[in-house]
Amino acid sequence: MKRYEALAEEIADSIRTGVMKTGDRLPSVRQASTSRNVSPSTVFEAYYLLEARGLIRARERSGYYVTAGSQKLPPEPEINLHADTRTKAVDVSELVFEVLESIKSRDVTPFGSAFPDPTLFPLQRLAKSMASSVRKMDPWSTLEDLAFGNANLRRQIALRYLSDGLQIQPDEIVITNGAMEALNLCLAAVARPGDSVIIESPAFYGALQALERAGLRAIEVPTHPRQGIDLAVLAQVLERSRPKACWLMTNFQNPLGSLMPDERKQELVEMLTRFEVPLIEDDVYGELYFGNKRPVSAKAFDTMGLVMHCSSFSKCLAPGYRIGWAAAGRYTQSVARCKMTTTLAASAPTQAALADYLSKGGYDKHLRQLRNTFADYQSAYMQAVVKYFPAGTRSTRPDGGYFLWIELPDAIDTLELHRQAIALGISIAPGPMFSAQRGFRNCMRLNYGHPWNGRTEEALKVLGKLIQAKQRTV
Amino acid sequence: MKRYEALAEEIADSIRTGVMKTGDRLPSVRQASTSRNVSPSTVFEAYYLLEARGLIRARERSGYYVTAGSQKLPPEPEINLHADTRTKAVDVSELVFEVLESIKSRDVTPFGSAFPDPTLFPLQRLAKSMASSVRKMDPWSTLEDLAFGNANLRRQIALRYLSDGLQIQPDEIVITNGAMEALNLCLAAVARPGDSVIIESPAFYGALQALERAGLRAIEVPTHPRQGIDLAVLAQVLERSRPKACWLMTNFQNPLGSLMPDERKQELVEMLTRFEVPLIEDDVYGELYFGNKRPVSAKAFDTMGLVMHCSSFSKCLAPGYRIGWAAAGRYTQSVARCKMTTTLAASAPTQAALADYLSKGGYDKHLRQLRNTFADYQSAYMQAVVKYFPAGTRSTRPDGGYFLWIELPDAIDTLELHRQAIALGISIAPGPMFSAQRGFRNCMRLNYGHPWNGRTEEALKVLGKLIQAKQRTV
Repeated sequence: MKRYEALAEEIADSIRTGVMKTGDRLPSVRQASTSRNVSPSTVFEAYYLLEARGLIRARERSGYYVTAGSQKLPPEPEINLHADTRTKAVDVSELVFEVLESIKSRDVTPFGSAFPDPTLFPLQRLAKSMASSVRKMDPWSTLEDLAFGNANLRRQIALRYLSDGLQIQPDEIVITNGAMEALNLCLAAVARPGDSVIIESPAFYGALQALERAGLRAIEVPTHPRQGIDLAVLAQVLERSRPKACWLMTNFQNPLGSLMPDERKQELVEMLTRFEVPLIEDDVYGELYFGNKRPVSAKAFDTMGLVMHCSSFSKCLAPGYRIGWAAAGRYTQSVARCKMTTTLAASAPTQAALADYLSKGGYDKHLRQLRNTFADYQSAYMQAVVKYFPAGTRSTRPDGGYFLWIELPDAIDTLELHRQAIALGISIAPGPMFSAQRGFRNCMRLNYGHPWNGRTEEALKVLGKLIQAKQRTV
Repeated sequence: MKRYEALAEEIADSIRTGVMKTGDRLPSVRQASTSRNVSPSTVFEAYYLLEARGLIRARERSGYYVTAGSQKLPPEPEINLHADTRTKAVDVSELVFEVLESIKSRDVTPFGSAFPDPTLFPLQRLAKSMASSVRKMDPWSTLEDLAFGNANLRRQIALRYLSDGLQIQPDEIVITNGAMEALNLCLAAVARPGDSVIIESPAFYGALQALERAGLRAIEVPTHPRQGIDLAVLAQVLERSRPKACWLMTNFQNPLGSLMPDERKQELVEMLTRFEVPLIEDDVYGELYFGNKRPVSAKAFDTMGLVMHCSSFSKCLAPGYRIGWAAAGRYTQSVARCKMTTTLAASAPTQAALADYLSKGGYDKHLRQLRNTFADYQSAYMQAVVKYFPAGTRSTRPDGGYFLWIELPDAIDTLELHRQAIALGISIAPGPMFSAQRGFRNCMRLNYGHPWNGRTEEALKVLGKLIQAKQRTV
């Protein structure tokens, strides 16, 4: 056994025996090197090994932490191999509205919510940017920025792409009222009523609703919690059907949390390019990674302008500001025109405020804090799932975002569970919200983007009891 | 001749001989009564008579002014009796985008623009409201206000309806990203691809584009510059077709400027109610009246919840803020849901800022100034049309808004004129932009919402020369 392996084994032991717990910070490389009298590179190699085994995880500029995965964890869900890939009309809205309505009250524990705790954001810093930039606003800019949006903001977004290694020109970027509008505009740019569009299964219900509203048909392709969309099935569908677009979340997919590996993203783009099918890439969670660097987007592998990359500031900086964008490749003009005939532009002062905030720095620091917060919450929520939910429960272990996808024992119907739970002031997002086929009846999405405290723990406990009671009655 | 008739005749003489000019303010009733040694009621009656003859016009809280109509004026256009009311697919976007693109530069004289001068608005007062309200924003409000929008703003809008004599509950109001989104959401709430919708002829090109994008078919009904949509033709169309909606501008219609008389609005609503056809009422110019009070909307005659009243602050208070709304009657829930699946919400700080501004007063004073400004500009522009445009030119004389609709001699093609003019830095909005049939080739819309000065006068002179040159060559 090499020196670094011995050290790794030693640390692994203290984790297994509970000396070190989930969320604990490991000594810095310098500290460990001094205290154990080994070279810094030995410590590095030991930490790499532990990271590869999933016991610890690096946080950007902050060090290594014991992961949730190091403790007893529920097993991960299997890929849903039975997804029916025939095209179908979509009708999921009633259910979605029912769930969304239920989480509007502050008294409800928002496990079913799509949004994180709104107090996690730098609202006072943003307010300062707003106050100063609205005073300086050039009245004529409201006309000049029509359709494409604030030029400074587009430049700031292009700079962020650049720092992630992506060359996107500001004039490929169209500012929108949140990512939801960006996605809708991209869809309108390439698909007409009656056309088919490939989505994931399970999929973000917003995609299902957008398809429903636009009179489009969905082709659902099974999606794996770790690998993302099943590329073999996708290839078959592309051969067989003539889809007008493919709408995917490549990073921390909602609801699964899957992070598609880089080489699979590349394969995906190459495959779509062969069939000349545009990709609408929803990347709103990409900034919320728990690892060392931002995961790349499929857009990075796009050579033909076929990828429309959509994102926003709603999940990572400024909820309620409703500012998103599309970097729409060869479809940029169509998207801008579509914008011109639907909402014309996003709020000018709000765009100016975000441009000001981004230009002043501080965004990266905020993001680091936010990522660490979500990583901590995830550990706590996951431990509670182990503790309170029945045996046979499976859960994803996403490396970012703020959703767990939980697969309950087969007999549990999460639509019923949702109705019972909401009566007790607890919301969940039942599985059938995420499928045109109303599948995933024993699954649910659990939002862990809200503080772990007595209230949330009690709510998870109650939820666990409801599930166990249901299990006994079937 | 009665005393007041003699006084009226005397004043009419000084107008005709040019002693008093367009835009001049008449003496107050008290002044005139003293200086001419007649009773105040005699002065009142004389002024009423002159107003009835169109020589002077009252301005709210400001007195009487000599109107443009008192000087030599071009004749008004006739109703277009030849409009073809068969349903048709719409394809007007290319032309519209070409014109819209041309007016983005500050160097272009914006006669073709849809927007007034952006410096006419209280931007600094709004900035103050923005700065103070964004600091006080409750983070949770961004979730609670989802879909319907800021509760304070909805209450302020309901209060304005109330002061216009209309009882609209705040929960009938959905805040949107400008009126354009409100109109699109209302359309989506009642029509599906392939359905037919009644619009005016000429119509706002935004309506044509919305229909085109949604895969809807247009039934164009001739519209009169003074009376609005032709109710006899509308009745025939309703008998014959099964339109899913009727989309009209009842007050200062774009492009005609027609103000539908109250009794015709009532007749319209009664007719649509008989056929159970919902009315999408676009009322974005209603606040820009030159008379004594805000014209009523068709919504005021709605007893069945069939009228969706759409408006915004973009033309009268806060361009670039992109805040509008729909008061959508029985379709309110559908509109809110549609909002939820497209853009979720309008910018929260922007909504809060407008709510703050409206609650603090000052809006009415700003509106009075703005109306007077547009009335003055209208007089000046109209005089220039008489002076520089060839004989045979007709022009509307709207009682509000900031558009003239100009009918040139038959031989003039305004699409050609637009191309020639834009090369000289002058934009116009050619007639074919306003029709699915590409009609109105000898017509154009002229924006008078920008200051009358040497530059605008010169541009109108150049335009007149271009028209006269074209006339000679045909």
